[in-house]
Parts: sequence; C-alpha cells; structure tokens
Amino acid sequence: MTAWWQDPVKQLDAAARAAAGERQNRLTKPPGSLGRLEEIALDLAAMQGRDKPFIARPSITLFAGDHGVVAESVAAFPQAVTQQMLANFVTGGAAISILAKALGARLEVVDVGTLAAEPVAGVVAAQAGRGTANLARHEAMNRAQFDHCLEQGRLAVQRAMDDDADLFIGGEMGIGNTTPAAAVCCALLGLRGQDMAGPGTGLSVAGVRHKAAVIDRALALHGFLALQPAPALSAEARSPTAPAALRCVGGFEIAALAGAYIACAQAGMPILVDGFIAGAAALAACRMNPKARDWLLFAHASAEPGHARVLAALMARPLLQLDMRLGEASGAAMALPLLRLACQLHAGMATFDEAGVAAT
Amino acid sequence: MTAWWQDPVKQLDAAARAAAGERQNRLTKPPGSLGRLEEIALDLAAMQGRDKPFIARPSITLFAGDHGVVAESVAAFPQAVTQQMLANFVTGGAAISILAKALGARLEVVDVGTLAAEPVAGVVAAQAGRGTANLARHEAMNRAQFDHCLEQGRLAVQRAMDDDADLFIGGEMGIGNTTPAAAVCCALLGLRGQDMAGPGTGLSVAGVRHKAAVIDRALALHGFLALQPAPALSAEARSPTAPAALRCVGGFEIAALAGAYIACAQAGMPILVDGFIAGAAALAACRMNPKARDWLLFAHASAEPGHARVLAALMARPLLQLDMRLGEASGAAMALPLLRLACQLHAGMATFDEAGVAAT
Repeated sequence: MTAWWQDPVKQLDAAARAAAGERQNRLTKPPGSLGRLEEIALDLAAMQGRDKPFIARPSITLFAGDHGVVAESVAAFPQAVTQQMLANFVTGGAAISILAKALGARLEVVDVGTLAAEPVAGVVAAQAGRGTANLARHEAMNRAQFDHCLEQGRLAVQRAMDDDADLFIGGEMGIGNTTPAAAVCCALLGLRGQDMAGPGTGLSVAGVRHKAAVIDRALALHGFLALQPAPALSAEARSPTAPAALRCVGGFEIAALAGAYIACAQAGMPILVDGFIAGAAALAACRMNPKARDWLLFAHASAEPGHARVLAALMARPLLQLDMRLGEASGAAMALPLLRLACQLHAGMATFDEAGVAAT
Repeated sequence: MTAWWQDPVKQLDAAARAAAGERQNRLTKPPGSLGRLEEIALDLAAMQGRDKPFIARPSITLFAGDHGVVAESVAAFPQAVTQQMLANFVTGGAAISILAKALGARLEVVDVGTLAAEPVAGVVAAQAGRGTANLARHEAMNRAQFDHCLEQGRLAVQRAMDDDADLFIGGEMGIGNTTPAAAVCCALLGLRGQDMAGPGTGLSVAGVRHKAAVIDRALALHGFLALQPAPALSAEARSPTAPAALRCVGGFEIAALAGAYIACAQAGMPILVDGFIAGAAALAACRMNPKARDWLLFAHASAEPGHARVLAALMARPLLQLDMRLGEASGAAMALPLLRLACQLHAGMATFDEAGVAAT
C-alpha cells in the first residue's frame, strides 16, 4: 500500500507558459530587462495554467511544535517561548501577524505538537504529542505521529483551498528547530553536523560546535552517518531515507510542512518557500516525491549558514537576501509583493504595438 | 558666489534613531533576526525624525532626455523610443506606470531634453535642449543647460514636497544613457571605458567594446582620462571634477537626478535610489555635496556590470538583486514594499512585555 504523499503531483501547464512567454516578448521594455520578475511571471503562468497569472488570495499556515532535543542545550531561548508565541501570532503582535495583515493574506496557526497543556484560542489544535522525543537519544516521533503530521499538512492545504487560496506559504515556530532541520538535511545530503549547524536564534561559537556534535550523535544513532551524498535531484531521486530522516531526526512542524508542500504540488497550488526550516522540509518533500519541486518558488536566503547547501541541493535561487533568520514564514511574506508586482507588470504593461513604441 | 547645491544638507536625527533602536530591541523576535529590515527602520527613523517611521506618500519623478552620443552607435534601440515612451508613461502602459499605480505612488514625468518637437500631454515640459550634444565630440551641455537641469531636479522635489511626499524616488528614460552614466562614473572614479561600459538595453560584445572606446575618447577630449581615482568618500570628498563631469560627459536627466538628490538631502526627504543611471547621478551628487550620502537608500543592484563599482564607491549595499536593467525607477519601485513592511513591522510588532514572551 502506498501512502497519499506518493501520489503524482499535478503537471505544469507548458502551453500557458509558452503563451505567457510570447506576451512577455511584446511588452514595452528591452527583452529580459525585468530580470527575475520575468521568470516569476512565467513560472506562475505554468503553475496557474493561464497566460496572465495573479495572486489574489495568498494563504499562510504556521505549524508549531516543540523539540525534545532542547534538553541537549541546543537553543538560545527557553522552550516556553514556543507556546507564548502561539498567542502572539493570533493576537497580532508577531512579525508574521503584522506582515499577513499588511499583505492581505490569510493566516492560520496549527499546533502540531507544542508543550502547551491547554488549547490556545484561535490556534488549530492538532498535537501529535507534547513535543518530540529527544532525537539525540530516541526516534523523534513514532510512525503514527509522523503520519499524523504529514496528514495535518495536507489538511491545512485543503482548508486553504476551501478558502480559495491561490498561493501557499508555510512557516514554522518551534524553539530548537534549527537542530532537527539541520539533522534532516545532513541525513538527506550525506553531510555532518558541522556542515549544517548554525547559530539559529543566537548560539555562541561554542554552542554551534556543541549543536553539531549533538547532530552527529543523532545521525549515528539512527544510521544516517555513513550515507553517501544523494545523487543530483531528478525524477529518479525518490529517497527511501527521506521519510525515515524526517521521522527520526525531524520535528512535528517540519513533517507537517513537508506534507503540506506535497499536498500543494498534488493539488496544483503554487508554493512560496520560506527560509532554513522550511527549506529542510522542502528538501524532504522533494526526496519523498521529487516532482513536487516543480511547484516551489523560493523566497529568501536565510542568514542561517546551512541554508545555502539546502538551496544548492534544490537548485534554487531565492528572490531575497535580507539576512533574515526569524522563521514564521516572515521571509516568504517579504517576497510576496515581488510575486504580485511581477504578475501585475506582466498582465498590465502595454505591448509595443499597443503603445506605438519601436521594438528595436 | 556659491550655487544652491553647495548649501548644507539636513542633519540626521540621532535621538530618533536611538529611540527606534531601543524599541527594536524589545520586539518579540531574536535580536537581529529581521536582518536588513531592522537597518531600514533605523535609517528611516533617523531621516524622518521619529521612532516609528512610515512611508505614506512615496513620490516618483522620471526625468527624460536624449543623447547626442547616440550618433556614435552606442544604443540598441532607436532614439525615437525616448519620446514614444513619454506617452507610454503617462497613459499607463510602461513598467513604472503599472508599479506606481500598484504601490499608490505619485508619478511625475519631466522632459528635461528629449528630441520631442511637441509637448506630450501629462509630461512636465522643461527641455534644456533637444538632446545633449555628442559628448564624444563636444561638451554634452553648456553651463546654462547644466544649471537648468540641476534646478529642474530641485523643482521636482519641491513639487513632491508640496504634495506631501515622504519618500523620493528618481528615475530616468533616455535611449543611450548608459554611455553618459558610465562616462560620468569613469571621470569621478578614475576609471576607463572598459571598466564601466556594459550592454545597456542589449549591445553585443563588440558593441560594448565600441562603447568603451567612445567613452575613452570622451574622457580624453574633456580632460578626465589622466585623473587618479578619487579618495574614499568622506566629508572632504567634495570634488571639483563632479560638476564638470556631469556637464561635459553626462546627460540632462542625469544632471536633473543629481540636483533632485541634493535638494532632497537639503530638505530632509529620504531618497530611494534606483539602478545604474540613478547610481551615477547619486555618485555625482555625493561628490558635489558629500553629506547628501546620508539621505540615500539603495534599492537594487542592476544587471549592468558597472553598477557594482558605483555601489562600492558609495559604500552602498542595495536591498534587491533581481537582474533588472530597465531603468524608469522600476528597481526602486520594487524595493518600496520592503521599506514599507520594515516600517510596519517596527511600528506594529508587540514587545516582549506586551506579549508576555520570555526575552531570553
């Protein structure tokens, strides 16, 4: 029996892309002079199946979870902050709350496994557990928890679609979650802790070194240390390691993001990927269902140093480099205006004929 | 007698910057995690003199001019396009027209010297002449024309202020204007044509080589070739070369932009600088009145290769790298949402105390 996340993703619309390209060549500007904005318009045309793509209803889902590995002293903030931030997201004081409101985006927060003992009003309660197990000593989650998180990702996408969303942004909150994100990437890319560990929200140099050692211990414990680097991404790159890595050294919110990305790709919903944690989830999603890559747009390069390796493995070149390292989908939110303006330029500019301007 | 553009610029407000920084440290995010968005908020606080800066009424002025040096075959498009685009700007079909509308920005177009024989409805008619002289054979403009262009820049800023603008974006249109922009930068930075010439709207490799030779001929003709590189930018970096370079090898719209930037800095209006041509004007402005640098924010790194040298000379790190090379202030317009969102985050986010979130 295969799982839902192995089902094929939707095909891109090559005809819509070609029609958009044909239009783009006739707009009143030197060919190529809008640079990456031209690529965005064509990519979205192929995803949305129309020659004039647009983003009317972007939807942001934040998945929150806690991490047993915080017991290994890998985080700069106390674990209670994860729960405290849940309330801050819904009452409007967090960065993503401000951005979602400013951008007119739907914002949903899903607790897939924080330590919160009580439900938080306004947050979707969908706990797989009260935090993951400590991945340096145990499997982070069991199979039932893993399936639950993937499914919560799928259900969040379904809710976004029921609300007519036309772009999906996934984000995360979870004190300590750069450690599982780095560990998942190490397992999938055949790397060691030192290749992927970074300061997260503010570790010292010694703290980063310790975090790398914790990751290496986890990789050894779960049998990921001896793996060779994965082959280049391709249709054949489906990796049996990916679900195991996500389950044994990942986190609830990271698994939920991976599930959401695959569900988007299957449903034909364009995805704007945030930073490092989201990038790790995107990498896992593409190793679980490689053609999901077709549906990913990359918003920003995180200040977290391991992100560059994730982006390289996904052959991704993000739109923004703003030294951000907050998570919460904040980097993706910042890139949303670029996508929208790219669409508006593409749809609204006059052609050379319309404007009576000489084309060469 | 000194000219108006030598008058001192407004001082930044250090107290407002400090107050903004104090607020920023208490917002519910790890310190520094919003990266360059935090810098933007502080820079704008210092410019606007308030701890919660905002951009309510951005104003875009496009200056258009034609260039005698097009006779040397340095442009990929016919010169008539400059005039044709004037109409396209005001009727709403050009890239900047779409962006200004989408962003709710005021858009004014000033003809400071195109070849247009008739005024174009909706365009401010302020011609210094019908195109500059060919800078490879003559001074691009005489002293009266030069003063006129600087003054037109100042008057455009005055109109923007009369309209309550709180951010100034300058743009340009002028077939062939990467050649004078490159020549001005060569004169000010002690460089040769090959260091600054690029493909502009689409020259071939041979075309770029020819353009570099035309620039070198102009630099030699006007006495700029033997100059040493300018010293690092400082309060003492006022350069007697700058007005001469702008006049002899510049262009009407480039001089108008330089005048506008200085007028903004004197009036205390934040400036968002566009790409290569605007960067050349900003460099000239800072050599004419060095403290004008305080009022410049840099929007994007152009695909035009010489832009990197201009940015380095101005110690500027632009917000966006999107491979754009259109001009028309289009790159600055794309960066405007980042500035606004940075302000909204800074003003709207909860503090740790307000949200009941642990700060460490």
